[in-house]
Amino acid sequence: MSKRIAGPEIERLIQLLAKVPGLGPRSARRAALHLIKKKEQLLVPLAASMNDAVDKVRVCSTCGNVDTSDPCTICTDPRRDGATLIVVEDVADLWALERASAMNVRYHVLGGTLSPLDGVRPEDLNIRSLIARIAEGGVSEVILAVNATVEGQTTAHYITDQLSGMDVKVTRLAHGVPVGGELDYLDEGTLAAALKSRTAF
Amino acid sequence: MSKRIAGPEIERLIQLLAKVPGLGPRSARRAALHLIKKKEQLLVPLAASMNDAVDKVRVCSTCGNVDTSDPCTICTDPRRDGATLIVVEDVADLWALERASAMNVRYHVLGGTLSPLDGVRPEDLNIRSLIARIAEGGVSEVILAVNATVEGQTTAHYITDQLSGMDVKVTRLAHGVPVGGELDYLDEGTLAAALKSRTAF
Repeated sequence: MSKRIAGPEIERLIQLLAKVPGLGPRSARRAALHLIKKKEQLLVPLAASMNDAVDKVRVCSTCGNVDTSDPCTICTDPRRDGATLIVVEDVADLWALERASAMNVRYHVLGGTLSPLDGVRPEDLNIRSLIARIAEGGVSEVILAVNATVEGQTTAHYITDQLSGMDVKVTRLAHGVPVGGELDYLDEGTLAAALKSRTAF
Repeated sequence: MSKRIAGPEIERLIQLLAKVPGLGPRSARRAALHLIKKKEQLLVPLAASMNDAVDKVRVCSTCGNVDTSDPCTICTDPRRDGATLIVVEDVADLWALERASAMNVRYHVLGGTLSPLDGVRPEDLNIRSLIARIAEGGVSEVILAVNATVEGQTTAHYITDQLSGMDVKVTRLAHGVPVGGELDYLDEGTLAAALKSRTAF
């Protein structure tokens, strides 16, 4: 806002809300006004919930997930199969895989991908802790669920090399046609991979 | 999330963020994760700013604006022309007009529009306080900047009736072609109004 039309506290709230992904400068203003209007129903509980998160959220020392307990809910869940570990780049990927609810297993969050250009080396990722987890025994399969990008694949190859001497099966996600996807809109690489990995009907 | 994959504090934060306009269930998860990752840079200051807003935000008893002082920044700004009042439905409209920076005047926020169907009567809006402000003297023009909806126009007519005996000029916003707008995409009502109110070139 060019002119001062409200107290600095409201302008600061708008500026901070604009940094939340999904909100821009315009929607941050709308969000701030909505929060102020719904003070008791939304602003007060949201502020309390954020303070709660500030106090309680921590990174799981076992798998790198974020949670309010360490080890996290997933690492301590006795109903999960600890023999399979899904390796992901980021907590967001872990949450996405959990939404798919396809496997009831445990995870290992790398915290990024190898990238010589950005100066991300193996020791900057949670790779040593992954190897230590597997060395402890009890893990029979590691599923590399990294993104299908150059950095993701480089990271996957590096991890495969590191695990080569260990008694563990290393697998990766299948490439193919997205469920509900139309062939016409798919890139050649995906189509070629889907053809190559075709399955019996 | 169907399965418990994180502590209840994180799930509560996601649920509350999903109620912020501009964020849905999916983007709330992304926002929560971003806030948790940028704890010191974003989550801590945002939580503090929200607590600040909870403590300090109040409704201006003069004009109905929201601010951290009462009377608000606009009502106490000595450089603003108090002889002109712009009547708006909502604080969001006040902010929108301020962004246009077209007039350096004061405002009166109605807090809604008359709507017999929804049970909104004149006494539910800040109309009595508007009349009282004008009765105090010093106001020479009231600009009715209500929305061009049926409810907005009904409200404008009601206010005009109430002010008919008073020594004040009542005006409304011009109808016409939006700046940058293409005629082809405009509705007939707007085009007819723009033709009727044509100006010399």
